[in-house]
This record gives sequence, C-alpha cells and structure tokens, in this order.
Amino acid sequence: MKNCEMKVDYDLIIIGSGPAGLTAGVYAARHHLKTLVMGKLVGGIASEAHKICNFPTYHEISGKELIEKMEEQVNKLGIKIENEEVIEIKKEKQGFLIKTDKKEHNARKIILALGREKRKINIPGEKEFLGKGVSYCAVCDAPFFKDKEVVVIGGSNSALTTSLLVSEFAKKVYIILRGDRLKGVPAQIHLVEKNKKIQIIFNSNIIEITGKNKVEKIKLDNGKEMNINGVFIEAGTIPPSKLAEQLGINLEDGHIIVNKKQETNIKGIFAAGDITNNFVKQVITAAAEGAIAAISAYEELSKEK
Amino acid sequence: MKNCEMKVDYDLIIIGSGPAGLTAGVYAARHHLKTLVMGKLVGGIASEAHKICNFPTYHEISGKELIEKMEEQVNKLGIKIENEEVIEIKKEKQGFLIKTDKKEHNARKIILALGREKRKINIPGEKEFLGKGVSYCAVCDAPFFKDKEVVVIGGSNSALTTSLLVSEFAKKVYIILRGDRLKGVPAQIHLVEKNKKIQIIFNSNIIEITGKNKVEKIKLDNGKEMNINGVFIEAGTIPPSKLAEQLGINLEDGHIIVNKKQETNIKGIFAAGDITNNFVKQVITAAAEGAIAAISAYEELSKEK
Repeated sequence: MKNCEMKVDYDLIIIGSGPAGLTAGVYAARHHLKTLVMGKLVGGIASEAHKICNFPTYHEISGKELIEKMEEQVNKLGIKIENEEVIEIKKEKQGFLIKTDKKEHNARKIILALGREKRKINIPGEKEFLGKGVSYCAVCDAPFFKDKEVVVIGGSNSALTTSLLVSEFAKKVYIILRGDRLKGVPAQIHLVEKNKKIQIIFNSNIIEITGKNKVEKIKLDNGKEMNINGVFIEAGTIPPSKLAEQLGINLEDGHIIVNKKQETNIKGIFAAGDITNNFVKQVITAAAEGAIAAISAYEELSKEK
Repeated sequence: MKNCEMKVDYDLIIIGSGPAGLTAGVYAARHHLKTLVMGKLVGGIASEAHKICNFPTYHEISGKELIEKMEEQVNKLGIKIENEEVIEIKKEKQGFLIKTDKKEHNARKIILALGREKRKINIPGEKEFLGKGVSYCAVCDAPFFKDKEVVVIGGSNSALTTSLLVSEFAKKVYIILRGDRLKGVPAQIHLVEKNKKIQIIFNSNIIEITGKNKVEKIKLDNGKEMNINGVFIEAGTIPPSKLAEQLGINLEDGHIIVNKKQETNIKGIFAAGDITNNFVKQVITAAAEGAIAAISAYEELSKEK
C-alpha cells in the first residue's frame, strides 16, 4: 500500500442476494474481484416461489431449491454472503463507504440488486392480522389453511400462482380483483380457470378485514361480507428505492434506470435485477443482469488500474 | 378461419437452437404460442464448451449436458425442434414465409437466434488439413492428441479454455497469439499461466500449415518452423448475418442491432443471443435475451388480436 492511498476493503460489494446478486457474485469471483455479497433475505422474492417452470434446464423447481443451488455455487467460489442490512452509502474519494446495521465497509464499485418488496394495500385489519390469517407469502403459509376458505387479493401472475398453491390445501379460494380480467401468463390463467376450487370475483375491492384473534370476515366495496379464514395479499411489488434516492440515482417509477451495461447515472454504481427499469422481471433476466453488471464493474476497474 | 384470411402455421418460429433459441422456446410455450424451433446444431457453440463454470446453479457442467437439459425442457413443453436450415425469409402480408432446406413454413413472428460461427484464419493448409490435425473444436478433438504436441491459435478466452482442455491430453501445448498479452477471464489466465505443459508465444502469427497426409509442421511470420501434430484454431467468431442482410435488418459489425425488448428495426422480427449487438456473450445472457424476445413477440401478438 502506497502512502496517502486509502485502503479499500473490496473491489465490489453486491447489495442484494437474489438471483441478480448471486449471479453477479459468480461472475465477480470468476473475474477474481475481491467481492462481498450482502442481503437480509437470500433469494429475495424468488425464494418464495412455489414452482418455477421457466428457468433454463429445470422443467420444474421450487424457488427455494433454485436459490439454494445458486447460493452453494457462490459459496464454492469463495464469495461470502453476509446477512447485513445497508443503512447508508456514501461516495468517497476512491469508491464508496457502506454503512450496515452491523459494520462499515469500503468498496470501489457497487452493484445494487435489491429486488422488490410486496406491496401493502393499507386497509383496516391488514397490519393487525398479519400472521393471524393475513399473509404475503403463500409458499410460507398455504399449508396452514387446510380445508379452510381463503381469499387471494390481486389479478396478476403472482395472484394466480398463489391461488393455485393455496387451492392444494384450502377447500375454497376466492380471487378478488379490481379489474375485469386476469393478467398473467396464459398457461397460469388456464390452470386457474379450470380449477374447481377457485372462484373469481371481478371488479371488487376488499376494504376491511375483521375478526377477534384471527381473520374471520372481510368486507368488499360493494357492501358484501364474506366469512373467510385467510387473506393472501398479492397486490404487486414495489422497488426499495431509498438507497438509490439517497445517492441521487435516476429513477423511473421507483426503478433504477440502467443502460445495456447495467450502468446507472453514477459512475461506479451498477444495478441489476427487479430493481431496474428493464421491463421483464424474471429469474433468468435478473441473473443475466447480474452477470452483465459484474462484467461491467470488472471492466471499469481494469481501466482504473 | 375467416374468409380471405391467410392460414399461418405458427405464431412464432425461432431460428436457432442454442441457449437463446431454446429459452425463447420455453417462454413461448408458457405463453401458449404455437411455436417451432429450428436449428442445424442444437446448442450452437455452447454445446462444444468443455466446462461451463458460470451458469447459475451449476458449479461446473459441460456444454453438452447443459444443452441436453435445456432441450429436454423444451421437448417436455411440447415444442418441436426441427433439424432444418433456413435458406430464405420473405415478408408477407400477415407475417413471414420461411423457406428451409426441407420445407416452407409461415409464422406471424420470428426470433433470430442464430448464434455465431468460428472464424477461419485463411492460411495455406488450414482447409486441406481440417480433420487431419486442424480443428476448431477442442471438445470434439482434444482426445486424439494424447502425448502429442499441438498449437492453439489465439489469445482470447476460448483459446485459453481450449489450451487447458488440450493440455489434459497433449504433452505440450503452445499458445500462439498476435498480441503481447492474453485476453480472457482472470481465473482462466491464472490457470493457463501455472500450467507447466502450456507455453505462450506472443507477438507471432502462423502463416502456413504443412505435412504429407496430416499436419507435421507450422511456419510463423518470424521465419521460425515448429514440428507439430495438431493446430486448434480459436481466432474468434463471426455472426452468421446473411439472413439478416437479406431482410434489411440493421447490423453493427455483422451483429443484429436490438433494443432492450430484443426488437430489430423490422416489426415482427426479434433477435436474441450471440447474434445481437449486446456486449456480453454468455450462456446466461443469451438465455435471458431469448426469454425477453419471446415475451416481446407475445405482447406484439396480443395487441394484434
């Protein structure tokens, strides 16, 4: 180390440990970058997927298993995945200072691969009954509703997947959606429509969840009440944009704007996966974006040597 | 079928059956598109890779095995992969007419996923000794050079991978390259540099391959001659751009120019994988581009219904 030169802990810190962050880790390792991956939930939203039927080479695999394989690959390459939450990122002379809930780290380059979070619908009872009948994760909670009656809120692909999974346990599943048609992959819509346990209630909004110690009833905006044991909320997702905002990164609807090299408007910061403004949000595309971001970080580092 | 409406065989024809074409096939199937995949060599260049160490979830897998798994997935989804070579594509009123070496097909949308081909170096002896010591595929031919002396032409990542593989059989491997440094993934360079069977000859060009019935000697541009049993040529790759040129598709150095949706300048034609002008050429990125292209084709078809 030369005089006056700041010690930098890592060439690259990858924030987020879903398919984008983990694949970025693989590519960083193959490029011999000193790398750290950090994330609160390894796998992100993908790890909650009941069945993934479109990741190359797997006809059908659970999100959990797919992520475990990715994680194992990263570990085998000698890259650490730390369970830390990033609180703040500061630009410094030779890179960035990353403050987490546990430590501080320096890195020359950063990849933001923060994924996305489930959206809340903000109705009375939603918060109060979380874990008492209200759930955002069918993979985690569906088995608790054996022979019960549940509603799934939403009409997107996630709502369809959740309904299909819950229908394997529950005796009745109502899909309640605002619009007048299901949105999602045709293969999923087809499965939902022919499933006799599932009934779809169009043009309706849930406005309240009630009960004593657990969910017992819901109210709809048409005045109707339903006796229900569980509420699965699939009201879309939002990108966690706080860190990006702090850094002055350009956003589009909360998503980080990237070019084809996964570069953001701030030199040294790349983004990959569901947090970006790319229009396809799939495990395969997130993984590819992670690979590209790591290669771009490596190329930028090479030029600075 | 209404009167006056042309019968179109397929919603989508995917030309090329490497990682991009096969993943496009998976996504097309999941979107219930009537789809055909066609390609002369299933897997393309990827199927010749000795070891792939950066595809998510696999610490190490051969190109052949990876492609077999992708192909199996496509087959299970009911999509056919036809061994046909496309000779010509014509724009028609409701889509495209695709003439192959065997048949004619109609499709509303097309994905060009033609991959890339190994580049020839055009020196005396190259063509004459093909299969008699000259090879473009180490995975296919390396075992024939047990205890022999061979040269590998090129300094890229493919040349390094080829050298490492050939060194498992040959007693001596010379890498001959034009430049003064190896280009490639640092992890690969490191392995080559510490391999005692491999010697690197910088700043040199091969100008002739000679022998009686098989390769015996090569000549370099510095006047030096070497007794050699085999020549592996890894002089880069070129995109097969003939079909794209016929169609008037915009190219950049022979590569098809695509936007983030994998759209070309011609409506209804998408491109994915190594043939595009995207800067990363990896199995994972090709697969992601295939997924995006299929989704884009589906979205365009949905709007036309």
